[in-house]
Amino acid sequence: MSGTSVDGIDAVACRVLGRGSRMRATVLQHVHAAYPSTLRRALLDAMSPATTTTETICDLNRQVGDAFAAAARRVMKRAGISARDTAVIGSHGQTLCHRPDAGSTLQIGCPAVIAQSTGCRVVADFRSADVAVGGQGAPLVPWTDWVLLRDTRRTRAVQNIGGIANVTCLPAKGGVDDVTAFDTGPGNMVMDELVRSFSRGGRRFDANGRLAARGRVCDAVLADWLSLPFFRRRPPKSCGREEFGRAFVAEALRRHARRRLRPEDWLATALALTIESIARAYETWLPKRERETRRDSKRFGLPPIDEVILCGGGSRNATLRRMLASRLGGVPIRRIEEFGFAAGAKEPVSFALLACARLDDVPANLPQVTGASRRVLLGSLTEP
Amino acid sequence: MSGTSVDGIDAVACRVLGRGSRMRATVLQHVHAAYPSTLRRALLDAMSPATTTTETICDLNRQVGDAFAAAARRVMKRAGISARDTAVIGSHGQTLCHRPDAGSTLQIGCPAVIAQSTGCRVVADFRSADVAVGGQGAPLVPWTDWVLLRDTRRTRAVQNIGGIANVTCLPAKGGVDDVTAFDTGPGNMVMDELVRSFSRGGRRFDANGRLAARGRVCDAVLADWLSLPFFRRRPPKSCGREEFGRAFVAEALRRHARRRLRPEDWLATALALTIESIARAYETWLPKRERETRRDSKRFGLPPIDEVILCGGGSRNATLRRMLASRLGGVPIRRIEEFGFAAGAKEPVSFALLACARLDDVPANLPQVTGASRRVLLGSLTEP
Repeated sequence: MSGTSVDGIDAVACRVLGRGSRMRATVLQHVHAAYPSTLRRALLDAMSPATTTTETICDLNRQVGDAFAAAARRVMKRAGISARDTAVIGSHGQTLCHRPDAGSTLQIGCPAVIAQSTGCRVVADFRSADVAVGGQGAPLVPWTDWVLLRDTRRTRAVQNIGGIANVTCLPAKGGVDDVTAFDTGPGNMVMDELVRSFSRGGRRFDANGRLAARGRVCDAVLADWLSLPFFRRRPPKSCGREEFGRAFVAEALRRHARRRLRPEDWLATALALTIESIARAYETWLPKRERETRRDSKRFGLPPIDEVILCGGGSRNATLRRMLASRLGGVPIRRIEEFGFAAGAKEPVSFALLACARLDDVPANLPQVTGASRRVLLGSLTEP
Repeated sequence: MSGTSVDGIDAVACRVLGRGSRMRATVLQHVHAAYPSTLRRALLDAMSPATTTTETICDLNRQVGDAFAAAARRVMKRAGISARDTAVIGSHGQTLCHRPDAGSTLQIGCPAVIAQSTGCRVVADFRSADVAVGGQGAPLVPWTDWVLLRDTRRTRAVQNIGGIANVTCLPAKGGVDDVTAFDTGPGNMVMDELVRSFSRGGRRFDANGRLAARGRVCDAVLADWLSLPFFRRRPPKSCGREEFGRAFVAEALRRHARRRLRPEDWLATALALTIESIARAYETWLPKRERETRRDSKRFGLPPIDEVILCGGGSRNATLRRMLASRLGGVPIRRIEEFGFAAGAKEPVSFALLACARLDDVPANLPQVTGASRRVLLGSLTEP
């Protein structure tokens, strides 16, 4: 899979045992294949809301297919598995445009190219079916979070921080219908875009949040950002580059130019936006404990959860982890690595499991999460 | 399916018996559903080489999906069949861009939308796999021509005359590897463009070839046209609006202005171009009979075929049929209606059969026709 940050493709080879909700996954190999820089630039240029040509999109569909196929072949080779050993490739593709409210979403990366190039069966286009029945088409990982990380005693928040940040809440002993999940807002997207803008494209992210750690949060900008309608909207909800991409950052830089913030202040403020939007989302939207005593509520602050499991690229950012821990009070924060998945591996593993779910005829969207009118089979099947 | 003229969707409900190369199809109902005019205009605007936005393409993918789903529901209703009676829907979608030499092709019309809206399993995206293995992704109907129209005793040329004319040659007793198919040149395109030009857009075609029948062929113009490199190129080959569209006609009118031809002479000459390019293509490129006696060869002229099956819009043109019969000497010319398919139904039936071929695991591209490096399964499978 490749996320909205478009840095490249995360491919995992994993062994899957069991079926449906009883699947267990073991990661054999994990490869991060950076996009060739010309392809990455072309993708960013074509991303909504961009003016482009139909030819460009047609050709990008092929080129992304080639890049995904190469990543798949590489991870298979490293894991020492052949096409014959491979039950299925789940390919999320690259999102170019996501407009669930208009009933449409566009992931490119031609599945026939992947199938022919690898010799493997491919499941792709996971989001369209959910969007077709009125859902947001996202997030789709909550089902696999539930499959892999549910617990009988602890209520868990699985917090992913990629370009966008999203949470899956897995109540202790909860069934699939008890899962809550939604996008909390930006993850690294605003920070990354700021770094790119300040370095004129020379740097792509603030490693370990070093720059942000040196800056001061501008409360006025933060308040301005947090007043966006997205944060007040009740889940299910999702966001993307349309809300927090280049245009969002350019607009903020223009609007608050007179404040003369330093780059590190902008970074600190963007990081605070990520942290604060996550914390407020927990307080406002996560299901409350049924028998919560006033004392508990005081002790833990509001988030009615027993532990946070952090994943995604942002979980490697030490400054972010420290700030989130401090903002959430006493809630233990664990990293996904403790559960056997490298930070970048969980999401690709999810799409491997979703591909298996498609083969097992198990619908894997969660209507309470995406807003879909019903559970549906996700993905189209392409044979080599 | 919907073709490059974008007038609307041809949907057929058909009963298919048998599997793979033994399939037999009976058309139960045939519906032509015009695109809403705003959608048609949006599609023409987005067609390559056009400047557009990623959002537009994302939304068109949804809207074309809705239109195809509506056409499918309508033809199912007319035929009195439910989703439960329906094994599969084959959806060609709408081609927005076709660049096989760049390894890419783009058909839109979201299959998940069709599947969810009809409750039927859908096979779509038929061209990508052939393009992925180096083919032109077209034509795909020769395989279904072979399935439906091959004969043990007679060698048949299935001659389609749309805007462009193309032939599928089915040798008597021939296997799938013996099929030849390619574009012979213009079908109605040059005649239609002349009529449009002479009537200043008031008329769109020369009904039944009435105007052409009154004119005299100008040998000099015809010879000029027939000297084009396209006609000398060895198959596989294809042509389109790029070769025989508006620019081609404008150039001819300019170049031969001093000859002072009457409109009916131009029409007669354009019709002769269609006829002559078909006949010469048969003589030059169709496989020769293995044991042809000199006497046979004299008697039949060269085309090594026993009968021509005419289909497409041009097959309704009586003058064209008469002239083709005369040019081909004694070869009987039959119309596709005799075989149970209305002129506009054969192509949608083809995609129904291609969907069945996908379910039966039968590769349906013909490498000798498309230039692909191997036979591959066509289409991706989407379940409701």
